[in-house]
Amino acid sequence: MPVTSALPLGAGAARKASSAVTAAAYRGIRAQSEFLCQPLSAEDCAVQSMADASPAKWHLAHTSWFYETFVLEPSLPGYRSFHPQFKVLFNSYYNAVGDKHPRPERGLLSRPALSEVIAYRRHVDAAMDRLLQSQWVQSAEDAGARDAALCALIELGMHHEQQHQELILTDIKHLLSRNPLRPVYRAPAMKTGAASVPALEWLACPERIALAGSDGNGFAFDNELPRHRVFVHGFQIASRLVTNGEYLAFIENGGYRRPELWMSEGWDRVRAQRWQAPLYWEPGGQGWRQFTLDGQRAVDPAEPVCHVSWFEADAYARWTGARLPSEFEWETAVSELENDPVQGNFSDDARYHPAPAVPAAPAVPARTSLPPRLLQAWGDCWEWTSSAYSPYPGFSVTAGAVGEYNGKFMSNQYVLRGGSCATPRSHIRASYRNFFPSAARWQFSGIRLARDQDGAR
Amino acid sequence: MPVTSALPLGAGAARKASSAVTAAAYRGIRAQSEFLCQPLSAEDCAVQSMADASPAKWHLAHTSWFYETFVLEPSLPGYRSFHPQFKVLFNSYYNAVGDKHPRPERGLLSRPALSEVIAYRRHVDAAMDRLLQSQWVQSAEDAGARDAALCALIELGMHHEQQHQELILTDIKHLLSRNPLRPVYRAPAMKTGAASVPALEWLACPERIALAGSDGNGFAFDNELPRHRVFVHGFQIASRLVTNGEYLAFIENGGYRRPELWMSEGWDRVRAQRWQAPLYWEPGGQGWRQFTLDGQRAVDPAEPVCHVSWFEADAYARWTGARLPSEFEWETAVSELENDPVQGNFSDDARYHPAPAVPAAPAVPARTSLPPRLLQAWGDCWEWTSSAYSPYPGFSVTAGAVGEYNGKFMSNQYVLRGGSCATPRSHIRASYRNFFPSAARWQFSGIRLARDQDGAR
Amino acid sequence: MPVTSALPLGAGAARKASSAVTAAAYRGIRAQSEFLCQPLSAEDCAVQSMADASPAKWHLAHTSWFYETFVLEPSLPGYRSFHPQFKVLFNSYYNAVGDKHPRPERGLLSRPALSEVIAYRRHVDAAMDRLLQSQWVQSAEDAGARDAALCALIELGMHHEQQHQELILTDIKHLLSRNPLRPVYRAPAMKTGAASVPALEWLACPERIALAGSDGNGFAFDNELPRHRVFVHGFQIASRLVTNGEYLAFIENGGYRRPELWMSEGWDRVRAQRWQAPLYWEPGGQGWRQFTLDGQRAVDPAEPVCHVSWFEADAYARWTGARLPSEFEWETAVSELENDPVQGNFSDDARYHPAPAVPAAPAVPARTSLPPRLLQAWGDCWEWTSSAYSPYPGFSVTAGAVGEYNGKFMSNQYVLRGGSCATPRSHIRASYRNFFPSAARWQFSGIRLARDQDGAR
Amino acid sequence: MPVTSALPLGAGAARKASSAVTAAAYRGIRAQSEFLCQPLSAEDCAVQSMADASPAKWHLAHTSWFYETFVLEPSLPGYRSFHPQFKVLFNSYYNAVGDKHPRPERGLLSRPALSEVIAYRRHVDAAMDRLLQSQWVQSAEDAGARDAALCALIELGMHHEQQHQELILTDIKHLLSRNPLRPVYRAPAMKTGAASVPALEWLACPERIALAGSDGNGFAFDNELPRHRVFVHGFQIASRLVTNGEYLAFIENGGYRRPELWMSEGWDRVRAQRWQAPLYWEPGGQGWRQFTLDGQRAVDPAEPVCHVSWFEADAYARWTGARLPSEFEWETAVSELENDPVQGNFSDDARYHPAPAVPAAPAVPARTSLPPRLLQAWGDCWEWTSSAYSPYPGFSVTAGAVGEYNGKFMSNQYVLRGGSCATPRSHIRASYRNFFPSAARWQFSGIRLARDQDGAR
Repeated sequence: MPVTSALPLGAGAARKASSAVTAAAYRGIRAQSEFLCQPLSAEDCAVQSMADASPAKWHLAHTSWFYETFVLEPSLPGYRSFHPQFKVLFNSYYNAVGDKHPRPERGLLSRPALSEVIAYRRHVDAAMDRLLQSQWVQSAEDAGARDAALCALIELGMHHEQQHQELILTDIKHLLSRNPLRPVYRAPAMKTGAASVPALEWLACPERIALAGSDGNGFAFDNELPRHRVFVHGFQIASRLVTNGEYLAFIENGGYRRPELWMSEGWDRVRAQRWQAPLYWEPGGQGWRQFTLDGQRAVDPAEPVCHVSWFEADAYARWTGARLPSEFEWETAVSELENDPVQGNFSDDARYHPAPAVPAAPAVPARTSLPPRLLQAWGDCWEWTSSAYSPYPGFSVTAGAVGEYNGKFMSNQYVLRGGSCATPRSHIRASYRNFFPSAARWQFSGIRLARDQDGAR
Repeated sequence: MPVTSALPLGAGAARKASSAVTAAAYRGIRAQSEFLCQPLSAEDCAVQSMADASPAKWHLAHTSWFYETFVLEPSLPGYRSFHPQFKVLFNSYYNAVGDKHPRPERGLLSRPALSEVIAYRRHVDAAMDRLLQSQWVQSAEDAGARDAALCALIELGMHHEQQHQELILTDIKHLLSRNPLRPVYRAPAMKTGAASVPALEWLACPERIALAGSDGNGFAFDNELPRHRVFVHGFQIASRLVTNGEYLAFIENGGYRRPELWMSEGWDRVRAQRWQAPLYWEPGGQGWRQFTLDGQRAVDPAEPVCHVSWFEADAYARWTGARLPSEFEWETAVSELENDPVQGNFSDDARYHPAPAVPAAPAVPARTSLPPRLLQAWGDCWEWTSSAYSPYPGFSVTAGAVGEYNGKFMSNQYVLRGGSCATPRSHIRASYRNFFPSAARWQFSGIRLARDQDGAR
Repeated sequence: MPVTSALPLGAGAARKASSAVTAAAYRGIRAQSEFLCQPLSAEDCAVQSMADASPAKWHLAHTSWFYETFVLEPSLPGYRSFHPQFKVLFNSYYNAVGDKHPRPERGLLSRPALSEVIAYRRHVDAAMDRLLQSQWVQSAEDAGARDAALCALIELGMHHEQQHQELILTDIKHLLSRNPLRPVYRAPAMKTGAASVPALEWLACPERIALAGSDGNGFAFDNELPRHRVFVHGFQIASRLVTNGEYLAFIENGGYRRPELWMSEGWDRVRAQRWQAPLYWEPGGQGWRQFTLDGQRAVDPAEPVCHVSWFEADAYARWTGARLPSEFEWETAVSELENDPVQGNFSDDARYHPAPAVPAAPAVPARTSLPPRLLQAWGDCWEWTSSAYSPYPGFSVTAGAVGEYNGKFMSNQYVLRGGSCATPRSHIRASYRNFFPSAARWQFSGIRLARDQDGAR
Repeated sequence: MPVTSALPLGAGAARKASSAVTAAAYRGIRAQSEFLCQPLSAEDCAVQSMADASPAKWHLAHTSWFYETFVLEPSLPGYRSFHPQFKVLFNSYYNAVGDKHPRPERGLLSRPALSEVIAYRRHVDAAMDRLLQSQWVQSAEDAGARDAALCALIELGMHHEQQHQELILTDIKHLLSRNPLRPVYRAPAMKTGAASVPALEWLACPERIALAGSDGNGFAFDNELPRHRVFVHGFQIASRLVTNGEYLAFIENGGYRRPELWMSEGWDRVRAQRWQAPLYWEPGGQGWRQFTLDGQRAVDPAEPVCHVSWFEADAYARWTGARLPSEFEWETAVSELENDPVQGNFSDDARYHPAPAVPAAPAVPARTSLPPRLLQAWGDCWEWTSSAYSPYPGFSVTAGAVGEYNGKFMSNQYVLRGGSCATPRSHIRASYRNFFPSAARWQFSGIRLARDQDGAR
């Protein structure tokens, strides 16, 4: 059973909670990373299947390196680093803290052994424990700016580790999929039956000057700030994600052979890489099959389509006569239509695969007067938006090396929203901006449609 | 002397003008394309220096192919195409009208000879003449939708050819720059002296709901539509372009060696391609020299910096503590601050190189009460904006094959505004959106800075 | 009509002939290079179709550069070079004489114009004329070592230019073939009819200690020296080249789909480049068509197969149960079986395409006692041998920069023998060693089979 | 301690020995492969550091696959394969037995686990045991052609596995060298002290018609056959290998910066890959350091230079005024000058690094009348020859799929002779032909010089 980190995170939380709460949250997140690696051998954890992905062992080490570099070395008196060369080996992309091992060579590191990396984690955890129990944390409420900054770094480190938890799952999925033996990561936790999916409805949101970005309640990355006004034209948004069944119709209609449906660059990609279906789909005798973390099986038409690039999402939307929502439309719709707290199919559920939409319970009669709900807004699949990833008006990066976290990737990527079945539930929120290049397919990325107020694109 | 096409273009113009006016505009534009090739030999016109660029001969043929394919074949009864294979050879990227010759192989076409391509142009021109003098044009004002569409295609063809005129210049510049003999395209038309440049001022524009896009007066590409509202926060914009002298300070401050100034992707590019200065700059004994269309000469510190990529523009802006304007900020500023008609250093001036800013004449006393002017908004250099090139709310592509004109490039490119010294004056307008990938440097692209209302980025 | 250089060349010739004879040979060769370019426009001469090939203009200039660099500058007092930068622009690969323009960028040189290159040739020719008429040449027979060396360099320059004449033809053929218009270099000089080809016979050569290499009579490149003994086992050699018809049977038998017939490296190439037939063959409605210098036409089954790589020659031979001859077997067979002087289908015949074998005339009765003749040993197609190109025992390169001529290419190439339809007749001899990498196909390269004495491979 | 397979191998041996002897040889070789992997973790055994190298796990599996595919499946009644997909996963390059897993993806196979591969080995070993104890082996001497063929296959399998033992060492060395932690494979088995090296002497061999190839005594690969005559000119050969100290003088003399010393192709490689020294050398504060299987340490000037490509060996030889021996010169010299049985520094010695030359013992007075001895002919380093790898006259490949063993690599590779410190002693012989491409450096390859009889190259 996965380790649930149900503890409240957030800048406020870390600053105000007693150290015990913070320490428990830390421990929960650390345990979850290792929990995800339990089904894996040391060999599985060492191999890198492509330059975009990293070995699980590297993720386990890098998340520890983050605390060591940004928290322990500057702030824990007497801290001794575990290994002098790990500073370089497990730096991902922080130029300000020195050299880094070349990304495509992460998979060459058969040493340190997985067991040593686990020992590294213990070493860091013990030091973090000392830090979290030290005086300054006990009196965090009275602490000055320096302590607040430290608390914020610890909190950032926990969110950082949660991001890598998602990558552990997406990267191991990619690795196993390249193995002709089609290994199973973990046997399915729950039965997947052919479900009937609620009809796709168009939910209307009128024109407005919307507020976008974090409202300051709880943790947020710098790229969610500042909260600002944006003019959003009236639009309609689909009540649920596009299903495999719907996407199959696109394929069968020649979707991958019709250039007029694609961005020029996307069409070049289709031809160069011979895309014919989402990543992990393979033609089989009885129709398409797909590789999942619980093995190879038939494509379920009721499940949301997943592992599509932005190019595919965009082409599919064009084929239907609709379009992708902008990130502001998405954020507006969630505020308006997703009146429940964040809930959905997350990594906490250990399903690790998007699930068919379930109709909103008609249970409460009073509900009928409420607006229709946005299904699958949380979890299942990250939802590609039409928005290029760029800074919000007034954006400024965090000072110091951790400022290399988000801002320097704000070119030629697209924003995704809502989290996936590989995201920890406590990690996501309405203002969360994930981002990937337009050809990336190995994340759990799916499609929600939108259209203009009048029903046009 | 260059052929000036001072004739009024625009959707309205073409529909309403007498055929004589339209025909004159057509002829003027056609003549200008050939005028630009006059200094070039057949050999110069045949060679392709990189996949992004095309031979001048190809531009001359492709612009004719456009009229032949979209205007003459469907609409001129009895039209016979000049050569059956030109349909494929000179198709650029219109998938809907059939196969196309591979772009990187345009430079292998030593045949047809330049003289044959000129004959092709004459053939198309004669047919266009017949078409423009035929009945339907004579009575264009009364014509129905079909004729309006035809008029719009002719007008589009003229704007299309003007775009290729700019490419003829940028592509031949690239070719000649690769030749160790450093050939001169044309001797300088006017003396370039070391000028004193007016100080950079910050011009303020308050927050507003702005209108962006074409106002329907005159021709516009589909990507300028529809006109729509956008929330623009208060901002400040630089009164002129960044100069070579200012950019040199960035270089000398280690701008190309400091990763913290760059987008991650831009930094990768800096290292992979060993960028150390703008394209066409070379270190010389007495300092930097640059290749221009009038030969190799010392970098003039008063001229605007040119041939920088979006990555360089963005890094430079970050180094100064400012940022690039969004395309909406640019459009707003031009409407607000550029109270004169479109004027500047255009290809009509046959200078083919950006010129130092000239202070706005303080002449008229009454003027003092007017807002300060935006210098160099038109011509000189295309100005990189912070805006990813994406569709306006409600955007729809033109029906038919010409719909492949703009929309399919709306991914991973950035918007540039304002035209350059290689742009025909009659081609540009406030709503005009040019676009190139973030690493492109061979266009005449420069930098205008912006910052937030409070002076922050 | 082509310019025939029937004049005797050779180290002896140059040294002993009157200067008039040498000068005439020089002029004949120079004229022939330009004769080959007559059907070409300046555009045709400027373009480079692949890194392996060079523009015709470059060949015209480089062959002049050779005389200028190695003959005129060191030996003609007062010689002024035509253009200071040509030293770099037209250096092919001689590191010892300074920098060179990058090979893949030869096609970017739209300047100097073809007309300037012709002027360069005239400049060099005039200087060569002065040199050849000067005193030292008049008295060449008495000249000392220095003059002998100069004579040898002049002679080398002439053979060098003849090599480039062949490349002018092979490179322009490649360029024109890449043009969808399939331009014709020159209309066929003679009718190509379906001929009946004499049956392939196996001609036996008994085991011996053979002498290989130049016998010192006439000019030879350094790679033909020293003449030396080699043990040659008894073998049989095919009386003529493999025909298109025979090669077609290989294709139809799945030759390009059966890995067991290929070198591993060749098989990788077949798949990577999707080889399905010789270069310049294309499937047509009525069977295979091929591009030739006189246009696109049906493959003639009687002609020798041409434009095959060593990998294809080797695979074809394996398929027949035979093999390629070693270069020593070839040289032995020619000495033994080719009792006539060098005659065949050469560039002098302006056919520029291999011709079907013609049976040896049975005319002279006395002939019946002679050994059977090797047909097509000279001209038509270069014949791939099984011999890797390596130095003869005791080989040493010529002193000085011209020593970079042959020796530095003695790795990973294979020897070809006998000349082709693009070779000048006076350029070839029994000891001549041509060499190309095993995947090269754009030369006029064909196949002659051999087998062991007992008929086995 | 390494497992020594001192048992006599050879076609004769397998056929004539009692099954017990054959089985013992088999078991010894199998044990040695696993012995070599003992210092390695499962992670070390899974990773592939470049396309040329394979994971150790793959070698362990592939050598078992060989017996399974070529011996057990066709010849052991009732044999059941261990896993149906291993047929594809562990096929190296045998097209005739079906598909194969792409070579560059061998490192993606985190499954099967190392433990499963060991189980696979046990499965094959048990079956081989049954086969070797069955009736047909007991009566091998009387067996007909089929049994002889089976015996030959078993013997081939053992030699095949010995080849992969060498690759296990070279491939793991490459992997560990890419790890910044510079892991040690195994602590040094014996002390390496600075030795004084005997002076290089030139040993003369007069001209002769030599016999080359296997004499039929003992096992030989097909590429060593048939034994045949070859004319060998008189030559001189160096008494020992080139040392690091000697090679350092080449480096310090600008060897890697002087194009005139290199094959053209080699020079391109030097520049493209920035070669400045042999593979595994790194500049350090106190001079060059080198990575070895017992760790990073200073370059020992007395040891033979190792991990050089053919290009480097050839350039070094040219720099000294000498050349590389041909493979026939090497074979002749060994027959003539190496009058002792095969002895040297082999993998049996578990040193895994070439050792300085030791002067031949002057001990026995009678010896003085003997010819001087060739030192280091066996073991230490494979010796590059000047001979391109090509078939011997009359060569024919073994029938069936194992015929893909050697013949299909006979293009663009060079022959190496004499074995290395990573070669099992029982694997090598005078006629043994190893082969690698001219740029390969990760094998234990070194340099022995030769020159012509008269002392010239």
